[in-house]
Amino acid sequence: MRNQYLKIEPVGGIGQIGSNMTLIQGANDTILIDAGILFPYEDFFDINYLIPDLSTIPVPSHLVITHGHEDHIGAVLHVIKQFPNIKVLASPFTAALIRKKLEFNNTPYPITEYRNVDQLGFIDFNIDPIHVNHSIPETHGLLIRDHKEEFGLFFISDFKIDYKTIYERPFDFEKLIKLSQNLKRKVLLVDSTNITSNTLQTPSEADIIPVMDEIFASTEKRIFITCFSSNIHRLMTFISLAKKHGRRVIPHGRSMISYLNTANELGMIPDFDSVIKPADSVTPNQDNLVVLLSGCQGDFRGTFRRFCMGEDSTFKPRSDDLVLLSSKAIPGNEKKISLLMNKLAELGIKIITSQEKLIHVSGHPGRDDLTHLYEKFKPTDIVPIHGETSFIRAHIEHIKKTFPSATPHYFLNFDSMIVSDDLKLTINLGKKHDPVIIHGKQLVLEKEKISERRKLACNGSVFISLKVSKSLTDVEKISFTFQGLPNLVTKGDDKFKRFLENYFVQISFKDMDKTTEELRIAVRRYFDQTLGYKPQTFIHIL
Amino acid sequence: MRNQYLKIEPVGGIGQIGSNMTLIQGANDTILIDAGILFPYEDFFDINYLIPDLSTIPVPSHLVITHGHEDHIGAVLHVIKQFPNIKVLASPFTAALIRKKLEFNNTPYPITEYRNVDQLGFIDFNIDPIHVNHSIPETHGLLIRDHKEEFGLFFISDFKIDYKTIYERPFDFEKLIKLSQNLKRKVLLVDSTNITSNTLQTPSEADIIPVMDEIFASTEKRIFITCFSSNIHRLMTFISLAKKHGRRVIPHGRSMISYLNTANELGMIPDFDSVIKPADSVTPNQDNLVVLLSGCQGDFRGTFRRFCMGEDSTFKPRSDDLVLLSSKAIPGNEKKISLLMNKLAELGIKIITSQEKLIHVSGHPGRDDLTHLYEKFKPTDIVPIHGETSFIRAHIEHIKKTFPSATPHYFLNFDSMIVSDDLKLTINLGKKHDPVIIHGKQLVLEKEKISERRKLACNGSVFISLKVSKSLTDVEKISFTFQGLPNLVTKGDDKFKRFLENYFVQISFKDMDKTTEELRIAVRRYFDQTLGYKPQTFIHIL
Repeated sequence: MRNQYLKIEPVGGIGQIGSNMTLIQGANDTILIDAGILFPYEDFFDINYLIPDLSTIPVPSHLVITHGHEDHIGAVLHVIKQFPNIKVLASPFTAALIRKKLEFNNTPYPITEYRNVDQLGFIDFNIDPIHVNHSIPETHGLLIRDHKEEFGLFFISDFKIDYKTIYERPFDFEKLIKLSQNLKRKVLLVDSTNITSNTLQTPSEADIIPVMDEIFASTEKRIFITCFSSNIHRLMTFISLAKKHGRRVIPHGRSMISYLNTANELGMIPDFDSVIKPADSVTPNQDNLVVLLSGCQGDFRGTFRRFCMGEDSTFKPRSDDLVLLSSKAIPGNEKKISLLMNKLAELGIKIITSQEKLIHVSGHPGRDDLTHLYEKFKPTDIVPIHGETSFIRAHIEHIKKTFPSATPHYFLNFDSMIVSDDLKLTINLGKKHDPVIIHGKQLVLEKEKISERRKLACNGSVFISLKVSKSLTDVEKISFTFQGLPNLVTKGDDKFKRFLENYFVQISFKDMDKTTEELRIAVRRYFDQTLGYKPQTFIHIL
Repeated sequence: MRNQYLKIEPVGGIGQIGSNMTLIQGANDTILIDAGILFPYEDFFDINYLIPDLSTIPVPSHLVITHGHEDHIGAVLHVIKQFPNIKVLASPFTAALIRKKLEFNNTPYPITEYRNVDQLGFIDFNIDPIHVNHSIPETHGLLIRDHKEEFGLFFISDFKIDYKTIYERPFDFEKLIKLSQNLKRKVLLVDSTNITSNTLQTPSEADIIPVMDEIFASTEKRIFITCFSSNIHRLMTFISLAKKHGRRVIPHGRSMISYLNTANELGMIPDFDSVIKPADSVTPNQDNLVVLLSGCQGDFRGTFRRFCMGEDSTFKPRSDDLVLLSSKAIPGNEKKISLLMNKLAELGIKIITSQEKLIHVSGHPGRDDLTHLYEKFKPTDIVPIHGETSFIRAHIEHIKKTFPSATPHYFLNFDSMIVSDDLKLTINLGKKHDPVIIHGKQLVLEKEKISERRKLACNGSVFISLKVSKSLTDVEKISFTFQGLPNLVTKGDDKFKRFLENYFVQISFKDMDKTTEELRIAVRRYFDQTLGYKPQTFIHIL
């Protein structure tokens, strides 16, 4: 048996969209690519996010970040805590975003910047960042090659191919081809986000500009736009059109202001000073405003929601406003967003969504774009990543159909691909680990605690405390608190009190645990008869 | 000022999809059309459903039901409770569905059946049911005409136009035109569900048959299909194709079995006895099965979910199964459903959805279908109903564009249209009433109780009780219970105990209320410092 040469193991990002994190191990090196968070699948009651279980992975020396989206950098804080000696590498803009996050959490940490032309050298391999297009500036694919330059892994989780964009170079196929053409085995790990989409070629970021230009020309009144705050190129479109149409741009909402400032600090926004004004420097009702609202997913605490509900203290929606949703609903958020659209519609406000006009484009490749990439890179092997399991399966079918010369490989988080010295590939199935739930001050909340919370929320709750006489024969005092139970119960306090008093006539308090448990069961049964469900019941006997 | 002639007031179904209920009042008559439920917009923690606030409406003499979907019959039980003398009218199949619901809740009540040819006579007006197509058999529009036959209201909330269906007659335009042609004013209240859809003409239920036929021919192995259980015509397609391909049909799940049995009891399913078998009469692993699973929305307690998760006691998913989603996600359910698709994809099971093949068609009209209806009925006035507010607005624009001879009217729940003696129309804005939340045994749960439940779920909870000495100077005993808090807190019991003990050193129990409140604030602050959020805190001092 040959020695292991390289091991590629995703620990997040396959089978779910989010929490992207991939382990690359050579004989000497252990590095992580990306450290992302996952938003909960089912409702976890305001829980912030989930991350891969970092306790299950070997200690990495480096963390290399491909781009600055939350599902790629959101867990950097946790990685640093878990692996206090890790060296974090990111492009300048991405590094600035990470630094802001860390400072916000009072845990500054040095981030090493890599530029597009840099080669990141390790003992077992080199990494060349390849510039790709996406929906945030400075997104990279990573070409990982052994020093013999026989084996190459092109890791490219999020990307699109944009030949028309005016904001950056198109996907750098030239560099990719130049560096990879002599490799004997070429493995492509690649984005599956849009594999089931009927849009085969993702439109260019530039395609939005004339559509937006026309929309800007169509109204003299205020324009409100919500979009992903990290989409700096999109924001640049709004800013330059605002300038053209003699409007002021007001970024509104913490994340909108923060991303714009970060980009501006790096000199990325040419018209910043002349066009962008803070909200408190304008008359909110003046017509010539373009207000950029964060919270395009309708998040409960988001600025877009606050505006739509009429709860924003600066900008109140007016019937002659124009509202643009330059974004799309991430699955699960559809209802939250349509609720807000209804609120605006009630006021008679004109709303334009990306369903009606091309005011949003995806940052991920359509099926034809993927085929284009296969044809350029000519991989021997392809591993679909970045997608739900059903997407990964669909991507495998797409590879079989459009690029049969490559071998598609299906594997999920914690499975791994082993590259041997003679460049053979083996897939090993790994033990699965549930992601970890993070709530509050970046703290772990155990899964069973979510279940406790769910029960409280679904059934309401009763707290009862009893003061028992020294002789353990009489109840001297009863207190109880209802939470989340209907008026039928709470306005009938006396009825429940009588039930308890009657119950106490016949019991003893000699065996406290037994009495407590019996009372708990009796109380739950009492409510079940009235309500049809059993509140969570907690009893203290003192 | 003329006397009021007729008042039309929706109390549910506009501005939200669901809880359809419309009040029609003449000088003498007060009738309700439909009594539906609404599924909660935001997550209400397992809350069953919402209904319009019945305490706000005048006492109706009759409830006329258009068809048997839950958003039209789900609140019949509540209407009967609130108005114990009401007469309920429904078509035979719909009546059978309502009776089953009422019996299930131990509240049998007489339902009067109307047939399609019947005219329902009232003091102020007559109602003629007009047969329309939809996604459940026996769906009717209601043509309401005054006795002078000058004014007509065509009320048609849910419908499609299906000229090709083999299961029922197409939309009965002939009867509609015959009865309405001499009316001087014709108002159309009409479905807005699909107004924003890019499918302009809704395909026929018959269009699915050849596609399904091909799919049935493509596998020798088991076929699992999930769809809306009430879509009897869809089920008939599966049954007749199963017969053709020599397969057995197994309805699986309470609602699937119940709807099929109800339809069969009315003689609607020709091949029932020869093709349909109960689950316990077959070998679960035999190949020639078509298993119909209820719960196509991925509901937590649904059979489809149970099957996908491998938790069904009869049918375990196998890699050679074919699974068909002959349905679409109702907005809000996308994530639940994709979770299940991932589970199947992990096993390598082939899944076909309506995105890939025409195995589901909508029961609502596309924009061109709506225009076709306008052109047939030739209304003078059109009121969009059955849709979110943004849909109602879009529908108004569609009317202006495609049928400018009619006047579109925009109004929402609790607004009303008054028809005067001289057939003039006035819109009156009404006071809005929030829908009522129903949980457990059809009981009202007040809105503020939902908020209590949300806080418990989002922050966890601490319940503390103290036994204080007779002298009110010392704490003799402390008990506390944590719910939904991380191990960091719960495994550190002693730390919290010490915090409490230290706190008690300096306080007095003379003013019990003040002490309780101060302690509550101190406890919440204590946890906020550790966790970054404040658990709901309840204190009993005994």
